[in-house]
Amino acid sequence: MNAIHYTPIGIIHTPFKSAEGTPIQPKASNNAKATIEIFPSYVEGLKDLEGFSHLILLFHLHKVKHRNLTPTPYMDTVSRGVFATRAPARPNPIGFSIVELQKVEGNKLHIQQADMLDGTPLLDIKPFVPGFEPSGTVRIGWLADKIEQLNQVRDDGRFTKK
Amino acid sequence: MNAIHYTPIGIIHTPFKSAEGTPIQPKASNNAKATIEIFPSYVEGLKDLEGFSHLILLFHLHKVKHRNLTPTPYMDTVSRGVFATRAPARPNPIGFSIVELQKVEGNKLHIQQADMLDGTPLLDIKPFVPGFEPSGTVRIGWLADKIEQLNQVRDDGRFTKK
Repeated sequence: MNAIHYTPIGIIHTPFKSAEGTPIQPKASNNAKATIEIFPSYVEGLKDLEGFSHLILLFHLHKVKHRNLTPTPYMDTVSRGVFATRAPARPNPIGFSIVELQKVEGNKLHIQQADMLDGTPLLDIKPFVPGFEPSGTVRIGWLADKIEQLNQVRDDGRFTKK
Repeated sequence: MNAIHYTPIGIIHTPFKSAEGTPIQPKASNNAKATIEIFPSYVEGLKDLEGFSHLILLFHLHKVKHRNLTPTPYMDTVSRGVFATRAPARPNPIGFSIVELQKVEGNKLHIQQADMLDGTPLLDIKPFVPGFEPSGTVRIGWLADKIEQLNQVRDDGRFTKK
C-alpha cells in the first residue's frame, strides 16, 4: 500500500531532553509540565479547546531508532508482540498520551502529565471524552501482573539506540 | 517541518461501505463486527494480543476530502475548533477508536464495535489499559450537553465531500 504523509501541526516542549529517565506514561510523570507550540496556520483549530480538561495527543516518536516486532517492554523482562505493548519500537512510531490541559494562550497550550521527549512533533489533538470509552470489564493481558510498577519504571533509552 | 511518512500495517474490513449512516463512535455502533487483515510482514507483532479485551486502533481516514479547522461536528449545530472535536476533517486525518477484540486468527483480528469505513488503512494497534487513563474529574466542554445523543447520531457524509 502507498505511504501516508502527515505534517506536524506543532512541537511539544518538555523537560525531557534524552530518553533515559523519561516517564513511560503520563500517569508516571509526576505531573510534568510542558508547553505545546501550535504552528500559526493551525491556531484557528484550537477554538473551544479550553472547555476540555484532558487532551489526547498523537505525536511522532522522532527519536526511535530501534524497530522490533517483539520488543521487551519497559515493564517486562520478556519480549512481547509490539502491538500488545506501548513500546515506541513500532512499525509506525505514533505516540499516544492523554494529558491535562492547564491553559490555552494564543498558539501555546500549557499541559501537565507530559511523557514525551522535548522537541516531539505533534500530529493531532483530540478531546478526551470518558463517555466514548469502553464500559464494562477490560482484560489487560500480560500487564495485569505488571501495572503496579508503573511509577517505578522509567525509560532507559533502549529504543533510541539501534 | 518535514513530512512524516507511515505505511499501513493492514486493512480494516467493515460493513460500512459509504460514509452516510456509518456510526460516529464505537459505542454507537451496535457492536458492529469487523475483520482486520494484518499484512504478513507484521503478523509477528500480534503475539500476546489475545490477552487484551480492547484495542486502540489508529487508522488513516482515507475517504476524507473536506478539511476544515472549524467544522460543524456531527453532534452539534455550530462550528467548533477541529481539535476540540473528533470530526474527521483534521489536518492529519488520523482516526482513533477503541474496539473489542473477539479473536485472533493468524493474520486476522475479529473485532466488535467498529465505526470506520470499509477498506480503512490501519496504522497502529495499542492495547487499551484503563490504568493508563486519567483518573479524577474530567471536563468535556461543548460535548457536556450533547453526549446523550450519541446513539441517535450517524455520519451524514459531510466530510467525504469537498
